[in-house]
Amino acid sequence: MPGSLGTLFVVATPIGNLEDVTLRALRILREVAVIAAEDTRRTSRLLQHYSISTPTISLHEHNERSRTATLLDRLARGESVALVSDAGTPVVSDPGAELVRAAHAAGVRVEPIPGPSAVMAAVSASGFGGEGFVFLGFPPRARSRAAPG
Amino acid sequence: MPGSLGTLFVVATPIGNLEDVTLRALRILREVAVIAAEDTRRTSRLLQHYSISTPTISLHEHNERSRTATLLDRLARGESVALVSDAGTPVVSDPGAELVRAAHAAGVRVEPIPGPSAVMAAVSASGFGGEGFVFLGFPPRARSRAAPG
Repeated sequence: MPGSLGTLFVVATPIGNLEDVTLRALRILREVAVIAAEDTRRTSRLLQHYSISTPTISLHEHNERSRTATLLDRLARGESVALVSDAGTPVVSDPGAELVRAAHAAGVRVEPIPGPSAVMAAVSASGFGGEGFVFLGFPPRARSRAAPG
Repeated sequence: MPGSLGTLFVVATPIGNLEDVTLRALRILREVAVIAAEDTRRTSRLLQHYSISTPTISLHEHNERSRTATLLDRLARGESVALVSDAGTPVVSDPGAELVRAAHAAGVRVEPIPGPSAVMAAVSASGFGGEGFVFLGFPPRARSRAAPG
């Protein structure tokens, strides 16, 4: 029965300035049962800043398959889940695409919570790209990540 | 003297849900001298909702050139300006690119305030587009706009 399923929220988070978070993102992060985070330590800094005590679970490229199964199980039991990346809009150059596809396939509602994106911020401040642009992904990661999504 | 120039903030605004606005966007809209808006009536709804009383001035495709001159003049006098579109991230499929280019040329600091983008929200919830995508602009406008930037 679809009505008893939880919702998967795909939540955009700040890309460098903790003030760059929407009112709805803060509310959703507070209300869900669990937050699936690319790096739980990094996400914890955001949560602590806003006194949000929702539990987190890691979801990164090395455990995405097993975590997807775990999280789908919780969504099936009616719990809601927020998916966040280190920074910016998840799934765009970030882990989480597999969870989103699996949720769609299982009939789980997937709701994007729009917010900061390094790609769009760069385009908007450049004065170019008004009617279209091509995003080919970020440069390969070295030790640290060059630019968050 | 660059230190005496104002700053042009390129501010992303909600794309359908008034809760989709960042804390920094609300602060900047409150603090600037004037808000250049694609549609001042639409922007007024957002401002009223958050009790922001900053004056607005229209900046749309039919007056972009003259308004750019006016706004550059105010920036040169040290006033700060926020540029917003009807919805989403300005300059991406929206008026304002000319103002941003002119500000860059005049040595005015241009600061993007990242936030909601219909393009990124759609990509993130689709489960596709993980490593790159092509944005070719929105479909042509008919009577109403199909999808905000």
